[in-house]
Amino acid sequence: MSEVTGYDYDLLVIGAGSGGVRAARMSAAKGARVAIVEDRYLGGTCVNVGCVPKKLYAYASHFHSAFDDASGFGWQLPGEARFDWATLRDNKTSEIKRLNGIYQRLLETADVNLYNGRARLENEHSVVIIDQQGDEQHVTAERILLATGGWPWVPTFPGNEHALTSNQIFDLERLPERFLVLGGGYIAVEFASIFNGLGSESHLIYRGDLFLKGFDNEVREFTRQEMDRQGVHLHFDTNIKTIEKTDTGYQVALTNGDTLEVDAVLAATGRRANVSGLGLEVVGLSLNEQGKLSVNERFETEVPSILALGDLIDTPELTPVAIAEAMQLADQHFGGTAPAPLDYTRVPTAVFCHPNIGTVGLSEEAARAQFGAIRVYRTDFRAMKHTLSGSQERTLMKLVVDDATDVVVGAHMVGDDAGEVIQGIAIAVRAGLTKRDFDNTVGIHPTGAEEFVTMRAPSRG
Amino acid sequence: MSEVTGYDYDLLVIGAGSGGVRAARMSAAKGARVAIVEDRYLGGTCVNVGCVPKKLYAYASHFHSAFDDASGFGWQLPGEARFDWATLRDNKTSEIKRLNGIYQRLLETADVNLYNGRARLENEHSVVIIDQQGDEQHVTAERILLATGGWPWVPTFPGNEHALTSNQIFDLERLPERFLVLGGGYIAVEFASIFNGLGSESHLIYRGDLFLKGFDNEVREFTRQEMDRQGVHLHFDTNIKTIEKTDTGYQVALTNGDTLEVDAVLAATGRRANVSGLGLEVVGLSLNEQGKLSVNERFETEVPSILALGDLIDTPELTPVAIAEAMQLADQHFGGTAPAPLDYTRVPTAVFCHPNIGTVGLSEEAARAQFGAIRVYRTDFRAMKHTLSGSQERTLMKLVVDDATDVVVGAHMVGDDAGEVIQGIAIAVRAGLTKRDFDNTVGIHPTGAEEFVTMRAPSRG
Repeated sequence: MSEVTGYDYDLLVIGAGSGGVRAARMSAAKGARVAIVEDRYLGGTCVNVGCVPKKLYAYASHFHSAFDDASGFGWQLPGEARFDWATLRDNKTSEIKRLNGIYQRLLETADVNLYNGRARLENEHSVVIIDQQGDEQHVTAERILLATGGWPWVPTFPGNEHALTSNQIFDLERLPERFLVLGGGYIAVEFASIFNGLGSESHLIYRGDLFLKGFDNEVREFTRQEMDRQGVHLHFDTNIKTIEKTDTGYQVALTNGDTLEVDAVLAATGRRANVSGLGLEVVGLSLNEQGKLSVNERFETEVPSILALGDLIDTPELTPVAIAEAMQLADQHFGGTAPAPLDYTRVPTAVFCHPNIGTVGLSEEAARAQFGAIRVYRTDFRAMKHTLSGSQERTLMKLVVDDATDVVVGAHMVGDDAGEVIQGIAIAVRAGLTKRDFDNTVGIHPTGAEEFVTMRAPSRG
Repeated sequence: MSEVTGYDYDLLVIGAGSGGVRAARMSAAKGARVAIVEDRYLGGTCVNVGCVPKKLYAYASHFHSAFDDASGFGWQLPGEARFDWATLRDNKTSEIKRLNGIYQRLLETADVNLYNGRARLENEHSVVIIDQQGDEQHVTAERILLATGGWPWVPTFPGNEHALTSNQIFDLERLPERFLVLGGGYIAVEFASIFNGLGSESHLIYRGDLFLKGFDNEVREFTRQEMDRQGVHLHFDTNIKTIEKTDTGYQVALTNGDTLEVDAVLAATGRRANVSGLGLEVVGLSLNEQGKLSVNERFETEVPSILALGDLIDTPELTPVAIAEAMQLADQHFGGTAPAPLDYTRVPTAVFCHPNIGTVGLSEEAARAQFGAIRVYRTDFRAMKHTLSGSQERTLMKLVVDDATDVVVGAHMVGDDAGEVIQGIAIAVRAGLTKRDFDNTVGIHPTGAEEFVTMRAPSRG
């Protein structure tokens, strides 16, 4: 206990995900006495059941097309490649254990105390931590940071207990021969692609007329065409009515009257703030209309000693955003500085479907609504690799420009390694560079990315 | 013949490579009466014996590691993949024929007259064109653009007639089991990687102590390590003394006393301006000390009606540079505008060795010499893919920052798709953005490229 503050810690972080761990480490580096509580796994959703395993499975799913592409380049395989799910799953698990260990060492090195257990708020400066044996420990802190992230949410329908979530899908006993995902967000789209690439018959069910709401409409439509071409079964304007277990799998009845029999159903139907059992009500906190905790620019909730960040607050649910927030928070509370508030516009993202999507800034629709007069530069083409592979896969690239200022306000790509390509573009878009700045940059030939600096004539005003 | 000028054409272009074709098309689009002369193949070096086939062969060479990587992701191949050179070569040839046809249609659509033959200057407004039958045709033009590009140069040593150049290497009868390339430039490095990836025993011989002179030293050293790890045999500080043909191949004696027996020798020992038979001397032109034609900002040689661009002048020998010059030239001479001169600094480039190199701006060494106080941010890591593939391949990323202004003056990468990643970064570097602009950009997780915006602590000042 500090003689100065009277609390055990300056900062107690609940939840050792990307945001919590970074906040703990950065605050400790600035001299704060810090502890962190975690009841599940170090690294949170991203490391354990999110970005990391998802990307590894996406890599695995891409080999399928690599084998197909190879023959046009002169490579002959002696027979069909066989995919073994258990190898991928177990290698993934080993890698994640390695990452868990890295997180543990990072915390140790940073002098952050780790409590294994589940924390519940007792008052605005105290939590009780219950470990796996049920033993309780009371810990006090000047500030408490809630960083428990999100949790998958499954809608109510008969048989919804048969639906898996992203928490379970990576660890299935075997590869489902027939796979179905419910949802229209990026997670649904990624898993539909992944299982298709791994060799499953893959279905996506979405109640709306097209997936990836909020993305540029042309990107959405282009992705639909490409996924369709790859053999993913896309069912829009419908929903799951019931799931029944049968002797041979699950019978899924849709609201459009169709019935599908599959071996696994994934519900990728959104995530909710993970606050169950956290004791928010004890300190008088509750979720707002967005289902999130409201915070000010210093990440303080209505109870000023209780902070929150990441997927618990109403900012983009992305690991790099949580990390940026964590660094801001540490600066503000323990660094004695008041950095400029984070800019949540022009946050780049990628969707690791096949082909990938990369995007930063405004969609064509949003830009037109915001600026009125815009110019759109777009191209779609068969990537050079596919001139020999024989694949009909196409790549889309698109720039959205505010006509009055020439500023590039959006950049979008669907194609191989779109996330890798868009990252650098995002620096330019974030800084407000103009189309002229893009034009003045020499292309790197032959790449796909060079198209972003060689589009000269607008496709539409 | 124009009644206004008295010449057959406003512009006669000699050489239908990337620069010549673009200059012809753009000038015609601005109303000029244009012809182009080509004696070999439409598209020039880039399309026929440069960028395009090189990139296709580089793709082919990468499948080898894709097959190796696959097993960690659960994919089992029933046996060893077999590479058939003839399939790659012939598919490449078909693709290039398709591109030649596209170039021809582009010229036709642009109303550019195409002469098949070899042009020789007769005076400052006239050329004679000799076709394959030996028939001569005299053509006059107000301006003549020399765009004949470069030609491989082979040093003199006993047996150098056995050395192939990049003009022949793509069309070998069969894959050499043992391959040797002489040279230390990017072409040598690319071919050493390509043949290694295709399964040849691959040797690179270079008289200097390390290849890729002019690139960032750390990039050069890192590339050496990675190519070494991949099994390319690198022989520095030595040169070819003699090549002798034997019953089983070619015996190559090196100046360090070693002898290698190989099945093919490629000389990638530089290129020279391709002016043989062009008749420069007739109009009083000659090459300067750099072996190039001197031009002013309007691409005019010392004979003002005779222009030159691309690999004939002393600017970076890159397709996109020739194209940028062509567009400038058309603007200046037929567009009635005087655009800002081209910025030849901060031209991004890629080397398609394995792994790729992508680079823009100054090396650490050049930046230190120019600015004195610099900051270097660098990271090297095993890409996420290789946590499961088992490959030990590493990725290098590096930013060089002018300490006084915080401007990022150089960005370098060695790793998968480095050219794709660097293209967007190049927009930022070209526009003079600062390290703070990079820091303020949110990363795309999980990508490799995100490291370019998440490096926080300088590795050295």
